[in-house]
Amino acid sequence: MNRNILVVLTLMSALPFGCRGVAPASDTLPSWNGGGTKQSVVAFVAAVTREGGPDYVAPAERIAVFDNDGTLWAERPMYFQLQFALDRVKVLAPMHPEWREVQPFKAALEGDLETVFSGGEHALLELVMATHAGNTTEEFARAVKEWLATATHPNTGRPYTDMVYQPMLELLEYLRANGFKTYIVTGGGIEFVRVFAEEVYGVPPEQVIGSSIKTEFELRDGTPVLVRLPEINFVDDKAGKPVAINQHIGRRPLAAFGNSDGDLQMLQWTTAGDGERLALLVHHTDEDREWAYDRVSSIGRLDEALDEAQAKGWTVVDMKIDWNRVFSFTNQQDQGGR
Amino acid sequence: MNRNILVVLTLMSALPFGCRGVAPASDTLPSWNGGGTKQSVVAFVAAVTREGGPDYVAPAERIAVFDNDGTLWAERPMYFQLQFALDRVKVLAPMHPEWREVQPFKAALEGDLETVFSGGEHALLELVMATHAGNTTEEFARAVKEWLATATHPNTGRPYTDMVYQPMLELLEYLRANGFKTYIVTGGGIEFVRVFAEEVYGVPPEQVIGSSIKTEFELRDGTPVLVRLPEINFVDDKAGKPVAINQHIGRRPLAAFGNSDGDLQMLQWTTAGDGERLALLVHHTDEDREWAYDRVSSIGRLDEALDEAQAKGWTVVDMKIDWNRVFSFTNQQDQGGR
Repeated sequence: MNRNILVVLTLMSALPFGCRGVAPASDTLPSWNGGGTKQSVVAFVAAVTREGGPDYVAPAERIAVFDNDGTLWAERPMYFQLQFALDRVKVLAPMHPEWREVQPFKAALEGDLETVFSGGEHALLELVMATHAGNTTEEFARAVKEWLATATHPNTGRPYTDMVYQPMLELLEYLRANGFKTYIVTGGGIEFVRVFAEEVYGVPPEQVIGSSIKTEFELRDGTPVLVRLPEINFVDDKAGKPVAINQHIGRRPLAAFGNSDGDLQMLQWTTAGDGERLALLVHHTDEDREWAYDRVSSIGRLDEALDEAQAKGWTVVDMKIDWNRVFSFTNQQDQGGR
Repeated sequence: MNRNILVVLTLMSALPFGCRGVAPASDTLPSWNGGGTKQSVVAFVAAVTREGGPDYVAPAERIAVFDNDGTLWAERPMYFQLQFALDRVKVLAPMHPEWREVQPFKAALEGDLETVFSGGEHALLELVMATHAGNTTEEFARAVKEWLATATHPNTGRPYTDMVYQPMLELLEYLRANGFKTYIVTGGGIEFVRVFAEEVYGVPPEQVIGSSIKTEFELRDGTPVLVRLPEINFVDDKAGKPVAINQHIGRRPLAAFGNSDGDLQMLQWTTAGDGERLALLVHHTDEDREWAYDRVSSIGRLDEALDEAQAKGWTVVDMKIDWNRVFSFTNQQDQGGR
C-alpha cells in the first residue's frame, strides 16, 4: 500500500463515526443468533445502502422508528413510567395530606395496586396528572432523573435503565452506523423518555416522540418557564403514531420496530411507502430470561399486529430463539439460542 | 509542509463539510455589511465554537431557530400562504358552486380583498380550512408544490421562493458550517413550509416546526393515509413558539432569529438559558429594496419586541444599513450599505 494512502486511512479512522463509510455487518449484532430474523434485517440494510443498487435510499431518507416499552426496554410487571407515578405519589404525599383519604391516592400510598387498577383508566389518569403536571419542564425532568438514579426493578433489583434489550441497543447502533437516523416513537411521555434516551439509547431529545400533556409559556418574575398542565395534549399510541411521526419528522420511515398492537399503524404506515421497507415486531416468548406474553396480555398485547405480520411477511423476533442475550447485565449466550 | 500532511489535508477537504473543523468567518456573510450587527453574530459564533474557551458549547446543543415570514422570506403585500389560500379558492371553485354566493368565498373569487379582510379572523380561518383541509398530507403537499412552481409575487413577478433574503441564506449556511442545527419555527403551516424548506433553506422537514391542523390516520382500501381535518391543532405563534420548540426539539435554542412581536417569547425563552445566547431581530427599514414597517403594521408588527431588544441589548438588523443585498436575484450592493 502506498504510504500516503496509509497515513490518510489511519487519520480518517480517527474521525467521528458518521464521517466514515458503511460499517461492516459482521459482528455488529453479536447478541443476535444467526438465522432468518437477523438475516432479514441485515439484507434490508444492505439493500437500501448499496450505492447504485435498485433499492438504494439516500441517507436523509433513512429514518428508523422504535417503540420503547417492550421494544427497547421491558414493560413488566408494569410500564416503568407507571411505577414512577406510583413512587412519586409517595414523594409528593407530604404536600397533599388529603391523599390519605382519597382514591386512587390512598391505595397508591398503601401499595394496594389491586385497588389502584380497579379504578380503571380514570384512576390512572388521575395519578399521572397529579404526578406529572403542576411543575415546570425543568422540574419534571429533574424528578425523573432522581427517580431513575434510585429506583430499582422489583424482579432484578437493577436500575430501570439496565432493563434495556442488548440486541436492540446493537440494532440501534448498527442502523446509525449505516446512515440511519434513529427515532423513538413511544406511547410513554415524551419528556419522561427524553431524560434517559440519549445516554441509554444514543437517541437525542429531538428524536424522541411521545405522548404529552399540554404546556404553557409563563413569565415568572421575568423568567420564562414552561408549565406542565393537567391536560392531555396528545396520545402517541396506535393510530396516533403515524400522526406524530408526520408531525415531528415529516418523512415516512424506512424501518419501524415495535412489539404490540399499539405499534400496528406505525408499521402499516411505514410499509406502505415505496421500495424496500422493514417492519419488525419483538415477540416476547422467553419466560426464563424475560417474560412470555402476546395475545391475551393486558400489557403490550400482541394480537392483531401478529396476524398482520404473518399475513404480510413482516419480521418477527422470537426472543427465545433469535437473541442469545436479553439484557446487557446478563452473560452472553446465557440461555436460549440455537 | 510535510508531504503526508499535505495529502491528508487535500483529501480531507473533499469530505462533507460537517466533518471538517470550523469554517472561516471571513467572506461567509458577503451580503452583510461590516459593522456592529455582523460583528455581534460573528463574535457569538466564535465564542460558542472556541474549544476550551469559557463559552464553548458542544455541537449537539448548537440549536438555532428561525422564524420564516419576514425573517427568511418576505411577508408583503400579504403572508404568502394566505395568497396560496386565495389562489386555491379559485382552483377548487368548480367543485364548490355554492362559493359563488357565500362569503368570504365570493369575495375571494372576485378578488375583492377588502371584503375578505373585513370578515376578520373568522373569514380567514374559513378560507384556510376550505383550502388546507379535506385532503391527504400527500395531496396537500402536491398542491403547494404546484402553486410554488407557477405563482408569482405581485410586485416582483418572481416565484415566491425567490423572495428569500440572501443575507439570511448566508447566515443559515454559516451557522451550519459552524456545527449548528438550523430549525424553522414558523406561525405558518408546518406542512406548507416543509414543501420548500429543504430546497430553499437547506432545512430538512424534521427541522421545520409550525402551525398545524389536526390529521387522522385512515385505511383507504387497505392503504394508510393521513387525512387533514378542518380543525386547528396548534398555533405556533407568540407564546406557542417556546411550547413547540420544547415539544419538537426538547432542548433550549442557543440562538433565535425573528422579526416581529410573534417571535418575542421565542427570543425570551432562548436568551433565558445559561451562557452566551444570540437573539436577533430583522427590522424592516428599507422601503426602496423591500418594505419599511414596524410598530403600527398589521403584518409583522414589531413593537413590544423592539422595545425589549433595545432594553436587553439584543441584535437588531437594520435592513437598509446592514444588508448590501436583500434578495438573491438583485445585484450585490445594489443599493443601501454604508
